[in-house]
Amino acid sequence: MRTRFQLGLDDLRQRLLRMGGLAEQAVDRARQAYVDRDLTRCQMVLEGESLINQAEREIDEAAFDMLAMQQPMATDLRFILAVTKINADLERVGDQAVNIAERVMDMVDLPVADLPVDIARMGTAVSAMVRRALESFIEGKVELAQAVLEMDNVIDRMRDDAFIQLVKVMNERPEVVRQALDSLLVARNLERVADHATNIAEDVIFWVQGSDVRHNVHPDAVEEQDESEHPSTRA
Amino acid sequence: MRTRFQLGLDDLRQRLLRMGGLAEQAVDRARQAYVDRDLTRCQMVLEGESLINQAEREIDEAAFDMLAMQQPMATDLRFILAVTKINADLERVGDQAVNIAERVMDMVDLPVADLPVDIARMGTAVSAMVRRALESFIEGKVELAQAVLEMDNVIDRMRDDAFIQLVKVMNERPEVVRQALDSLLVARNLERVADHATNIAEDVIFWVQGSDVRHNVHPDAVEEQDESEHPSTRA
Repeated sequence: MRTRFQLGLDDLRQRLLRMGGLAEQAVDRARQAYVDRDLTRCQMVLEGESLINQAEREIDEAAFDMLAMQQPMATDLRFILAVTKINADLERVGDQAVNIAERVMDMVDLPVADLPVDIARMGTAVSAMVRRALESFIEGKVELAQAVLEMDNVIDRMRDDAFIQLVKVMNERPEVVRQALDSLLVARNLERVADHATNIAEDVIFWVQGSDVRHNVHPDAVEEQDESEHPSTRA
Repeated sequence: MRTRFQLGLDDLRQRLLRMGGLAEQAVDRARQAYVDRDLTRCQMVLEGESLINQAEREIDEAAFDMLAMQQPMATDLRFILAVTKINADLERVGDQAVNIAERVMDMVDLPVADLPVDIARMGTAVSAMVRRALESFIEGKVELAQAVLEMDNVIDRMRDDAFIQLVKVMNERPEVVRQALDSLLVARNLERVADHATNIAEDVIFWVQGSDVRHNVHPDAVEEQDESEHPSTRA
């Protein structure tokens, strides 16, 4: 039977997963809005922001209550602190999606320009990073988190390539300088989403490896903590 | 006499203030590097980053230890959580300073361009925001934190102005498109520093107003908490 405290941890995990789902959806919508020059999707991203902000506050309050009402052991404490950090990163992922939507709203008033940059591909890769980072959190697996860290280098290269190509366009085709700038800023926003996914992966590593360190110190405390580390709850 | 726990809170506060000093210094150096096109200062910003990252990890560990070893009451708990959040924001302020330094390193290879943007003034305003946000934290004063939130609107307007002017330059003077882009990205980085100062101010409000709420619930617990709320420690 799960204690009230364990149920509280489950609830916190579920809330964070829902928050992650909202953030990932925002990035996907923003990417699609860019590809299709779709103002309706931009509007959905803007409206979704307040939901994400509300979810962030509720998770922070829930984490605070868990810390205030109970005396969590080291593993649970690291888990709750990781939740508050991941929470902040997911909220900022939502902010980046809003920034992208705002760029798209600027772009749709301008003539379509053929630009040497594959924002759609970059967006798909970045969404995958966010999803994997959340998976590494659900599974509590360092290997998955490490894979996210490696993907970040790929995104950085894509951003650098986009930067070089688009500056070239700005120099050679002044008539599309604003479109090129919009695309460059969208690439930058996507890179920032990747940075947040990286932060999340690092928090997962902090949480899991912190547990391992503690286990080595107090091996007899492992059993009662196991359940909260390998949750049966799934989104 | 101060208890071991109170000394721990003092230590945490001192560490965060030192961290804040490092982050503020990084922004000042980056701004000055931009104004003087000074590679030495860029190098100092890049080298300072590892100090800031190390300080961040140490503060996180200290906050974790405080939570793990003691059972903090609600005010102290909010304070410690605010410290971990402010800590993350200060680290990102340092990252923005590094981004600015990297832009300056790109710029110094290009001919000087006279651009209609006052980055120095924007940088000074942004540094002031970071300083005020930290002051609001030291003093535990909501009014100071509110003032920071209002300054953020001013910075956003400066960024929008810079954006409009620089896009115009890019359209009309293709020969300086890269310098204009560098300046635009620096303006954006400064705006992000202002966003982090805003986050810090919001965390201060969460901490202080959370305390007030708690005081209303448990008025007899006020006295023993007073010292940690209005610290005698100063940087």
